[in-house]
Amino acid sequence: MKIELPTEPTALTETRTAREILGWARELVEPELRAAAAGLPPSMRAPVWHHFGWDDDGGSGKAVRPALVLLAAQAVGGTVRPALPAAVAVELVHNFSLVHDDVMDSDETRRHRPTVWKVFGSDQAILAGDALLALSAQLLAGHPDQLRVLMSAVLDLVEGQSADLEFERREFVGAEECRQMAAGKTGALLGCACALGALAGGGTPDQIRQLGRFGEEAGLAFQFADDLLGIWGEPAVTGKPVFSDLRNRKKSLPVVAALASGTPEGRALAELYRSPDGLSPDELAHAADLVERAGGRAWSEAQSEILLGRALAHLRAATPRDRPHAELAALAQLLARRDS
Amino acid sequence: MKIELPTEPTALTETRTAREILGWARELVEPELRAAAAGLPPSMRAPVWHHFGWDDDGGSGKAVRPALVLLAAQAVGGTVRPALPAAVAVELVHNFSLVHDDVMDSDETRRHRPTVWKVFGSDQAILAGDALLALSAQLLAGHPDQLRVLMSAVLDLVEGQSADLEFERREFVGAEECRQMAAGKTGALLGCACALGALAGGGTPDQIRQLGRFGEEAGLAFQFADDLLGIWGEPAVTGKPVFSDLRNRKKSLPVVAALASGTPEGRALAELYRSPDGLSPDELAHAADLVERAGGRAWSEAQSEILLGRALAHLRAATPRDRPHAELAALAQLLARRDS
Repeated sequence: MKIELPTEPTALTETRTAREILGWARELVEPELRAAAAGLPPSMRAPVWHHFGWDDDGGSGKAVRPALVLLAAQAVGGTVRPALPAAVAVELVHNFSLVHDDVMDSDETRRHRPTVWKVFGSDQAILAGDALLALSAQLLAGHPDQLRVLMSAVLDLVEGQSADLEFERREFVGAEECRQMAAGKTGALLGCACALGALAGGGTPDQIRQLGRFGEEAGLAFQFADDLLGIWGEPAVTGKPVFSDLRNRKKSLPVVAALASGTPEGRALAELYRSPDGLSPDELAHAADLVERAGGRAWSEAQSEILLGRALAHLRAATPRDRPHAELAALAQLLARRDS
Repeated sequence: MKIELPTEPTALTETRTAREILGWARELVEPELRAAAAGLPPSMRAPVWHHFGWDDDGGSGKAVRPALVLLAAQAVGGTVRPALPAAVAVELVHNFSLVHDDVMDSDETRRHRPTVWKVFGSDQAILAGDALLALSAQLLAGHPDQLRVLMSAVLDLVEGQSADLEFERREFVGAEECRQMAAGKTGALLGCACALGALAGGGTPDQIRQLGRFGEEAGLAFQFADDLLGIWGEPAVTGKPVFSDLRNRKKSLPVVAALASGTPEGRALAELYRSPDGLSPDELAHAADLVERAGGRAWSEAQSEILLGRALAHLRAATPRDRPHAELAALAQLLARRDS
């Protein structure tokens, strides 16, 4: 039995907030996601259910990517139903990459819960990711153009993650190559989400391209904002310890900018990052201060702002319908943390 | 520039040997495989080239699966060209699973060379596998039916590998569940190869089904034969140390049969498998002897024989053309090690 949900706007003037949009997308996508996950082999049920928080009240992510897919479809004059497989497939790919990345990064917590590898071991986590990726491809089997776009984004994700891992082992990383890494790791799938929605909604090639670029730039703006939160975010909000990225000596965007700044603060930060021991609370606070004084914080804030502006320009260039236009802009602002 | 290779048999009477067929398939598939691999992200070039042996004289596998795809297409009256994407995609999936399995199994050698994770680290190996899987899906984007069959085989592979890993941690494994694990881990992709060839060649639903079953049974026959080699195979042939599977306390099919035999030899073997220390050369030879005396060797040989017979019955039921019929039978015999 299929319950009909209100999928299309009742009046074009009622623009919803970003939070409302995410709730709407999640409500639409969640049952389809669960239906797709039912096609997983039995042994993958426990790790995947755990990952999505279906085994307790955890709750699965924010559905940003599905929301982008659905709104992009509406933006080009399409409806939501035909875009649902793409919305689910993008979410599957996103979660495939989270599960595998957590193995590679040895991250123990995600969404305030232990990661799949932490609970089930890394072998099961590798297999669970593989299964999610295969499932995403299966889901778009009937849509060759969409499948090509999605799998091409997977290859970008791989390239971005590979660069990220390589950077962690390197002493010097340039700000530009770090930015490019983030474009692969975060921008590609958000751009893909928008392009897929535009494809499913019957957009013109130019609309598909512009909406894809909108998603990429918004995704990169998000990464800059997220990397700021990785240092200065509230633990209660991020679910990570204070100064989390500094604790892990992550070469995040503000850190890389500081390290490459050629300032005394940048050199002092490099010194701290080289230290073989864990950093004390005082040293962590000092490191955060060094990133700020070396200009890493201001640069990241400015980049996020500029990228948001560029994203919105691409969105306008796609000549979207009014309401999805306003709602995609609201989502982009949420991603760039300009909503509060 | 495309060089035209002789793809179709010149006369239906000239049946080739299994070795000749594999050489033919490899010659046809290798350039397409390299063309597909050119679509990989730059960071994946080194690990994937290493895996395929393209960075030296290593040489990439035996092309059993591509050969099955191409012959199955001919078996139902199709030609080879339209089946090439499927042949390449199956080979990509096979290698995706090898690269990931080697990480999970900590296997250090494959095809007489160090494995990808051993050379590049497990993170790069996970990413390389992910990229190969994405590439395989991309390659079949234009063929929805084939893509569904291939991704469904990926899910079977995942289930098989998961069971295999779980068995290694368990004290008691039943012969039937071990057989089922092998059906997922080996039978599924060989069955998929034949089904894909039949699909690409325009076979009837019954031909597709029968050829799929042929591949599954032949694949399982291969696994029984391969597990025998894992104990009694010549190191020069297998590229593995003598008594390799016993050394690693693998719960392979003959071992599981011996352990489950209820015989004194089975119990003595269980005792050896529980020992916390590495087994000495004498103990290894003794363990092999115990597997044999507990009936594990005879059972595996009989199973391989029975499965080969069943495979050939399904092949006949597909009413294949004469020459591909003979050649698929020759391949099945090679897989079940009945060629020498």
